[in-house]
This record gives sequence, C-alpha cells and structure tokens, in this order.
Amino acid sequence: MAVIGRVALVGAGPGDPDLLTRRAVARLRAADLVLFDALVDERVLKLARRAQRFFVGKRAGRHALSQAEIHAVMIRAARRGRRVVRLKGGDPFVFGRGGEEALALQAAGIPFEIVPGVTSLLSGPSLAGIPVTHRGVAGSVLVTTGHDVEAFSAMVRGLKAPGVTLIIAMGYGRRMPLAEALLEAGWPASTPVALVAGASLPGQHVWRGTLSRLAAGEGACDGEAPTLIVVGDVAAMALVSESDLVEDEREWRMRRSEC
Amino acid sequence: MAVIGRVALVGAGPGDPDLLTRRAVARLRAADLVLFDALVDERVLKLARRAQRFFVGKRAGRHALSQAEIHAVMIRAARRGRRVVRLKGGDPFVFGRGGEEALALQAAGIPFEIVPGVTSLLSGPSLAGIPVTHRGVAGSVLVTTGHDVEAFSAMVRGLKAPGVTLIIAMGYGRRMPLAEALLEAGWPASTPVALVAGASLPGQHVWRGTLSRLAAGEGACDGEAPTLIVVGDVAAMALVSESDLVEDEREWRMRRSEC
Repeated sequence: MAVIGRVALVGAGPGDPDLLTRRAVARLRAADLVLFDALVDERVLKLARRAQRFFVGKRAGRHALSQAEIHAVMIRAARRGRRVVRLKGGDPFVFGRGGEEALALQAAGIPFEIVPGVTSLLSGPSLAGIPVTHRGVAGSVLVTTGHDVEAFSAMVRGLKAPGVTLIIAMGYGRRMPLAEALLEAGWPASTPVALVAGASLPGQHVWRGTLSRLAAGEGACDGEAPTLIVVGDVAAMALVSESDLVEDEREWRMRRSEC
Repeated sequence: MAVIGRVALVGAGPGDPDLLTRRAVARLRAADLVLFDALVDERVLKLARRAQRFFVGKRAGRHALSQAEIHAVMIRAARRGRRVVRLKGGDPFVFGRGGEEALALQAAGIPFEIVPGVTSLLSGPSLAGIPVTHRGVAGSVLVTTGHDVEAFSAMVRGLKAPGVTLIIAMGYGRRMPLAEALLEAGWPASTPVALVAGASLPGQHVWRGTLSRLAAGEGACDGEAPTLIVVGDVAAMALVSESDLVEDEREWRMRRSEC
C-alpha cells in the first residue's frame, strides 16, 4: 500500500501571528509543504521551519496557480506521504474557498482536517473597538462580500436594518455603489459606518462616518491592506483603551490611527 | 499615583484548548486573576497557572454574579495592580457581552484590550464539515440568536433565502418555532438543516435534516452541550475526511457521531 500523507486546511487568522491558534502553529511546525495565499503574513510562514513554501495566491491580478492546480499539488504531495498545510487568511471556510479544496481532497480519498482560524471579518471590527453584537443595539451579524453589487442589493432590500450589523469583505473598491444600495433599500442615511483596513497589522487604520458620507465618496484610505466595511449602529462605537501603556507593553496597546 | 493593572477580554474559542490563540495563552499564563463563564473548558483554565480563578457565569439557571458585579470586580482588581483575564467562550464581541464590559472599563479608565477568539458560531459548522460559505451555494452568513422567536421572525421575513447561511445560537430549545418562522417566511421545507452540539469537544454531535423535519420535532439530542442550528444549502455538506487515521493521530481525526 502506498504511503499516504495528509492535508490540513489551516486558518491563519487576520495577520498578526499571535492570533494563530495553537493547532495552526503545531501544523505549521510539522509541515513538509505549505501552500499559501497573498494575505498570509511572513511571520506566520516562518513558523513552518522545515517546510517547503509554495505561493499559490493572486499577485498583480494574476493567479499563480488555478484552483484545480492547487488541488492537484495538494493531492500529489499527500500521496507522496507529505504533511501538507494549505494556509489561508482568516478561516478556511469563511470566504476562503476551503470548501472546494476539502471536496477535492475528500473525492481523492486524502486524509484531511479543517483547522478553524480567527476570521478577520469578525476580529477586524473587534480590534477597531467595535463589538459586532451589543445588547440593545445589535443582535445579529450578516457577513457578505461586496464584489457583486446587484446581488448585494437584492439581499439587503428586505433585511430589517435595526439590530443587524453588516460586515462586507472585498467591497472597499465598490463602497459607493454598496452604500447607495443600502440607502435605496431604506437604511437611514445616518447609519454609522466604519472602514477597517489592515486589521491586526501594524498599519491598522479605521475610518468612521455614515452611509451618506460613504455614498458621497468619503472614506478613501491609502494602502493596499484589505479593508472591511462595517455598517450598523455598533460601527459608531470605539471600545479601545484610553490609557497610555508603557512602551514595552506594545502587545497590550491598541493601535489606532485614522484614515 | 496608584498602581494600575489591566484587563484582557479574552476569547476562549469553542472549547478545545488547541483552538485558543497564542495571545490568549500568553494572557492566561500571565494572569493574576481569571474571571470565567460556564462554557469555558477546564483544560483552558489550567493554563492560568498562577492565577486566582473566579467563576462568574450562570449555573443551574442562576447568575453567580450580576453584570454590574463582574464590572466592579474587574475594575477593583485592576486598580490594585492585578492582571485580569476576563475569559469568554468563543469571541468576546460575538454574543459575549464583551461590549458592555469594555464600556465599563473604558468609563473607569482601566487599561484593557480585546483578544479575539475563534467563535463557535463559525467554527462549529466547520468542525462538522460544513463550509459556511461555498462558491455557487452560499455567499453570505447571518449569525443570530434564537431566544426571541418574534424578533427572529421579523428579521428573516424579508431575507432572501438563496445564498444565505443562517447560524442560530441559543435557539436549540426553540428549534420548532424557529423552523416554523422560517417556513412562514417562505424558506423551502426542503432547506437543509444541521444541528451541531458541543463543537470541538470530544462529544461533538451532528444531526442533519431539513426545515420541515426540524419543525416536526426531529433533531432531539441528548446532553447539555450548546447546540448551533445551521440552515441553508451548505448544511447538507459533510466535508470530513473519510480516511481512517491511526489511533495515535487523534488530533487529526475528525470526531463524528450522529445524534
């Protein structure tokens, strides 16, 4: 019988290596091969000390490997007995295409596991001091993407706005039509909005405003960091520590800079 | 000037200590005092080796401490210079009342930080092999609670069902009226449903069915473990490894038992 390796689909969290889970760290340390995307931090990759590292993400608008090629590489490596880590920003099953990869592994009979990660969709707002749920303010959270404005419009049209926090990934470039869609769906112009760029990373930026200000073109941020859009009453909250912690307590300090 | 300690509001993840973040582990190890809830695993608490541990949750329907008392204990301890960890199941800002605690700390001028955790609302489905988003199947996720069936009804009435995965916490005891509410809102009777009990823990259980079967009273599970309700086409998926891993590879094995 052939030696069979295994694949772990691992969530790398929002970026900061301290937000990796212990299991993610263990899998990286034991890995022979790591396949990683553009959003994975260099400090995270360094934990895979004995592994061959293989970039399979999108750079300058081009995919290094197609999804089918990624599947083929994982399956081939596992069949050769290697321990493969497929490392994804955030959580592998939250907008990570992890489902497609798990299906391919399952069909090929390769042993695999899912290692959940801290999704940036929820931790991004948290690290900006926004509780995505808050008693008497928001009791539900809708996470979605912003790449299809039409589908987004159809979905939010019937959604009751009060009490729902809306978190939009991959929508920063279309933030004006997305804000328009919410206004047309009847969300109040004064609904608070926050943009959270580069959550958990040293350059984390937060912009706070309203739906009407976003629709009017405010909220431009410099930089390439992925930017979340948070819409709802909680977006006006900024639960960050007001104290000045001493310099050597950097880990404890909430980084806050404004767009 | 008085010595000032600090408070970390720490997410403990879904239960399995391997799903703690590295930062959560560091905060627990450094803590003088840990305030914890009912859902926090004993193996997680053990990491706080030098800390006094204080149960502040709900047991047998009664709160050990009121929310205001929890705030007072945290503030008093921090003012005495202690490093306090307020440990919450999942993520502190996702149905964790962390927002209220952060507000109290902010108002009192106590240095604090939020340490995001792996929320069981998203990792629970993952560990049951359900990708909460999946290309061509589900592009949005709505997380909510089930303790107010009327509010739930109002919210889902306008929500377009196709493409949305609905995840309901704290609704297992009301699963029949919640399923009824979705049927009345026009969700198809054949919509897949999964119940995930005790996600990440040794006794993890999964039941799979449909909205109509749930409404008819199926899906009863034994045990006290918190149970999530997952509704949507992805709930029919079971992306778990089919291979039999050897006994000493327990960590890699997906635990699956049926309700």
